[in-house]
Amino acid sequence: MELNKYIEHTLLKQDAKKEDFEKLYQEAIDNKFFGVCINPAYVKDAVEKVQKYGVKVVTVIGFPLGANSTDVKVFETQKAIADGADEVDMVINVSKLKDKDYDYVINDIKSVKEVCSNHNLKVILETDLLTKDEIGTACELCIKAGADLVKTSTGFVKGGVGAKEDDVKLMSEVVKSHGLRVKASGGIRDRESAIAMINAGADRLGTSSGVLIMEN
Amino acid sequence: MELNKYIEHTLLKQDAKKEDFEKLYQEAIDNKFFGVCINPAYVKDAVEKVQKYGVKVVTVIGFPLGANSTDVKVFETQKAIADGADEVDMVINVSKLKDKDYDYVINDIKSVKEVCSNHNLKVILETDLLTKDEIGTACELCIKAGADLVKTSTGFVKGGVGAKEDDVKLMSEVVKSHGLRVKASGGIRDRESAIAMINAGADRLGTSSGVLIMEN
Repeated sequence: MELNKYIEHTLLKQDAKKEDFEKLYQEAIDNKFFGVCINPAYVKDAVEKVQKYGVKVVTVIGFPLGANSTDVKVFETQKAIADGADEVDMVINVSKLKDKDYDYVINDIKSVKEVCSNHNLKVILETDLLTKDEIGTACELCIKAGADLVKTSTGFVKGGVGAKEDDVKLMSEVVKSHGLRVKASGGIRDRESAIAMINAGADRLGTSSGVLIMEN
Repeated sequence: MELNKYIEHTLLKQDAKKEDFEKLYQEAIDNKFFGVCINPAYVKDAVEKVQKYGVKVVTVIGFPLGANSTDVKVFETQKAIADGADEVDMVINVSKLKDKDYDYVINDIKSVKEVCSNHNLKVILETDLLTKDEIGTACELCIKAGADLVKTSTGFVKGGVGAKEDDVKLMSEVVKSHGLRVKASGGIRDRESAIAMINAGADRLGTSSGVLIMEN
């Protein structure tokens, strides 16, 4: 199994330094990872450093709370794509999902997808905060809104565990027959859990432990 | 001491429900708090519910990572003010501060201030991630960039403690002679710590424990 092709090598810490980004880029190039995942302020730099080596640049939108307005998520996406991002991972509005304001949630995602054109849009559900029913519903809303992938976690929930096998399985069951794919992220720290996520249905892995996963 | 006039009654949890916001608004009105602090998606609603009672609406920009691009922070601020926000609390780019890219940090803040016009701009330093030297430097950059207040914390750092008396004191020492004020936020959960922060120099308190602080 070519694990490296699943990995989005991720650095989203708000205090990461220039040398941390340089290390991330080099590791992604050396290991031929699918991509790097970094915050929007660093997209231009990442594009310049890794795209020529076939490594994709993924960034995050409305991250990690998903609680900013749709207009801002749309603008942030336009800016990220203009800066050269290949894919964007937006955070769903969890409050509106819990309030069952499904029109809001669909419009929020659909509006972002409209400005993505042919770039993949992943929607982060933040499974740590959701019930199984809410995860299922969120997946259905993502299908309706035209998302390309659903993603488990931001990795920023206090006390959260991130991707869980049964959540990845549930998400896969709901979305795959509609042509969407699944990204597992948060808490994937070794080869064993990486493979478990893929077996559960993950098409992509978001992790900051990519190098460790390849080594052991 | 009229503690209520210091309090920005805060609800920034990404899974807060409609009833949680209603409760927050009513408590802010009943206790005559300075304001409420909520995520940008809820500004319009908050404006409608609390402003007529003299409660200000405060929202957050580039929150909580501060790692999105300046253009997006500017757009988000314009949108928040158009929605009726009275004040905005932006997060500084911690990576650029640590890289000593001070021109970036100043321009990031200054660009947001330009669209704030007469609305107060607070800059969140995220003191949990900074050394004392970095806190001092960040305050100086905020002065140069034209910010109105400096603020300690987002409350979202994993393992972070939030506002600390000595940090508030240090921030006050640097900024007050230049006419800026200080907001302490994160971890203020009782009357004792609220008063300690004010004695250390805080002009505002960001807390989700406002009611508890008033009761005991």
